[in-house]
Amino acid sequence: MSTLAKVFQPLRPLDDALAELLVYAHVLQGIEQVSTFDADGRVLAQDLVSALQVPPDDNSSMDGYAVRLADVAAGVALPVLQRIPAGSCGSALAPMSAARIFTGAPIPAGADAVVMQEDCTVQDDGSITIAGLVKPGQWIRRAGEDVTRGAVVLAKGERLAPAALGLAASIGMSTLAVARRPKVALFSTGDELVMPGDVPPEQMAPGAIYNSNRFFLKALLTRLGCEVTDFGIVPDRLEATIASLRGAARGHDLILTSGGVSVGEEDHIKPAVQSLGVLNLWQLAMKPGKPFAYGRVNPGGTAGQGGAHFIGLPGNPVSSFVTFLLLVRPFVLRLQGATRFATPSIAASADFTWARADKRREFLRVRRNAAGALELFANQSSGVLTSAVWGDGLVDNPAGQTIQPGDVVRFIPFAEVLS
Amino acid sequence: MSTLAKVFQPLRPLDDALAELLVYAHVLQGIEQVSTFDADGRVLAQDLVSALQVPPDDNSSMDGYAVRLADVAAGVALPVLQRIPAGSCGSALAPMSAARIFTGAPIPAGADAVVMQEDCTVQDDGSITIAGLVKPGQWIRRAGEDVTRGAVVLAKGERLAPAALGLAASIGMSTLAVARRPKVALFSTGDELVMPGDVPPEQMAPGAIYNSNRFFLKALLTRLGCEVTDFGIVPDRLEATIASLRGAARGHDLILTSGGVSVGEEDHIKPAVQSLGVLNLWQLAMKPGKPFAYGRVNPGGTAGQGGAHFIGLPGNPVSSFVTFLLLVRPFVLRLQGATRFATPSIAASADFTWARADKRREFLRVRRNAAGALELFANQSSGVLTSAVWGDGLVDNPAGQTIQPGDVVRFIPFAEVLS
Repeated sequence: MSTLAKVFQPLRPLDDALAELLVYAHVLQGIEQVSTFDADGRVLAQDLVSALQVPPDDNSSMDGYAVRLADVAAGVALPVLQRIPAGSCGSALAPMSAARIFTGAPIPAGADAVVMQEDCTVQDDGSITIAGLVKPGQWIRRAGEDVTRGAVVLAKGERLAPAALGLAASIGMSTLAVARRPKVALFSTGDELVMPGDVPPEQMAPGAIYNSNRFFLKALLTRLGCEVTDFGIVPDRLEATIASLRGAARGHDLILTSGGVSVGEEDHIKPAVQSLGVLNLWQLAMKPGKPFAYGRVNPGGTAGQGGAHFIGLPGNPVSSFVTFLLLVRPFVLRLQGATRFATPSIAASADFTWARADKRREFLRVRRNAAGALELFANQSSGVLTSAVWGDGLVDNPAGQTIQPGDVVRFIPFAEVLS
Repeated sequence: MSTLAKVFQPLRPLDDALAELLVYAHVLQGIEQVSTFDADGRVLAQDLVSALQVPPDDNSSMDGYAVRLADVAAGVALPVLQRIPAGSCGSALAPMSAARIFTGAPIPAGADAVVMQEDCTVQDDGSITIAGLVKPGQWIRRAGEDVTRGAVVLAKGERLAPAALGLAASIGMSTLAVARRPKVALFSTGDELVMPGDVPPEQMAPGAIYNSNRFFLKALLTRLGCEVTDFGIVPDRLEATIASLRGAARGHDLILTSGGVSVGEEDHIKPAVQSLGVLNLWQLAMKPGKPFAYGRVNPGGTAGQGGAHFIGLPGNPVSSFVTFLLLVRPFVLRLQGATRFATPSIAASADFTWARADKRREFLRVRRNAAGALELFANQSSGVLTSAVWGDGLVDNPAGQTIQPGDVVRFIPFAEVLS
């Protein structure tokens, strides 16, 4: 007589599993030099040091007139003796004169303020008079205000977003050294799965369901800078599965599957990975998303060098989506050497009741309402992908915790982990 | 004697300018059919109606045993007479028996609960006994729980994100009808601008600065689903500028420039656009970002049909970045028919002092700290792009308002407008 429960490992805390996973996530070898125009989303492979100061010179932040304070104090009309558009250089400002100056143009030597054109009156002879007080340094942007020479403007490990590309360009970088893209082989598993397009809805066999996980997994991986190869649904024979995994391990850094990693699940992925390397099956203390696997696939067998990481996600769409965000996202960011890879969460106010405390840490699909409080999607089943479409984030609810309206909870906005 | 100030229009409220801009943003003609795998970020061009229910049948949400409650109540060992993996169909459950069942497999007729394998003990003869209470319907996911037949699972105008692609796939959609990508021609203007790579930092002429705006504008437009053609820095002769704009208007939906739209600014973009169509110069009551232009460029002259939208952003990097997010982003989303295009903002607590109220509505670069409160970037100059790299969002501060630590302010997270 055997009790199945006895062979199970105890449930493993998510943070503990993540910490172990990150130990395996060695930064990939290989740096690419890409055009700054094409570097959005990539991870910087070296510090970016500025060889110049930005702006290069003191310059005007307004269209107007460059003046000497002492001359303005005299209260007389000042002749306009020069004109300095952006991109040109004026000469030293003669005493008792003004220079017409435009936004971005360098301040002429001797001038110590700019007066907005709105505050000047042009006389018939072209000279100007000035209304109001003039403060020293007004409307002057100082040289080096944005970037000093020798400053690290962007550090190695920074994941580049649009503003960072602009900053890199502003110090003259037309190309950037970035981590190479992780190559990911995507599989799914499950005899019940049918690819959309292969069988029309009205002809689906009883028990058959459409594969949906690979669609969002591919999009999520692509957003994180990965190059994804889709290997489809794994073959339903062990030898063929082994051959597919061996082939994928040769050309990829990571093999990602969904389905097939539950205890007692019916498929070939577990024995196939085990025959080619190692596989650790974890039961995570989280909901959705209990089953999770990490292993290595070595194309030359367990004794071989190299090979690919293997990560097996649960098959339920929401479990797969949530475990991807919480575990695979930090993993693939670390493969690229990103220094910011932790899942961001913020404090937010609940506008719902969660009466049924679970023994596992839960990730509830919620949406922020107009007042900024969180509303709960009615159906929190892990098979219901609509919750992740309706929602704009997850509440990270500790084990054993109920939630009342007004309680402050941890909120993980999807936008923060999807961009 | 003339006062320059008199010829200026009064400052225009941002919301008012945005409302006018959106009136011009007619949804583009043309629908594309793309693979669901490639539809991330695209805008749905028609409602997605489900031809099936998801899941298709009542199915198990656990690995375990399907049973009849009445049999469990009897308290005797139940023989396991069938085995139902996911993807297969069992037969009706014989009275006083159990069926081995796996996650996702359909519930056999007659069964009204699933018992987790952890709660079952397998006897030497293969029959099972059950510990604990069994509730009606437990571990059964109901047919149609995710999607009912005929439901609109995704509405026309929805911008597709990864989870939505999974949802579309789950109802069997292998391709999706989406709005075509807006074609955008990108120019910049300013005699002081040098392209990174053209001149090394140590050889930059006095007054020259590197162009940075086109780098982030291209990345921002691409993230919003646009197809971008880079036309570089506009030529410094009027005729050549007119020829460039005329050419760009023929093949593009929108011409976007930065720089050259301030009052009195020295360049050819204004007369060139005016000679080819119409140009409205707005002075926006916002900071950064006062000058802004909207117009039309008609390749056949003002009387011609068709043509392209023209938007001119300010030349300062931060002004250009902020006006893009607040005005151009909603505009290009509307061109694609997106129904959610408004700039999202949330309430957040300030952890800084802003003592100097401005007469214009201000957008301050801030970052959320560990406690979730907002910290201010020290230098809020509009020339300082580092503020937008350091920051993770903007505080939308009304005109005339000071801010004290602890004040609740409106916060626009960059992640929400960049993804």
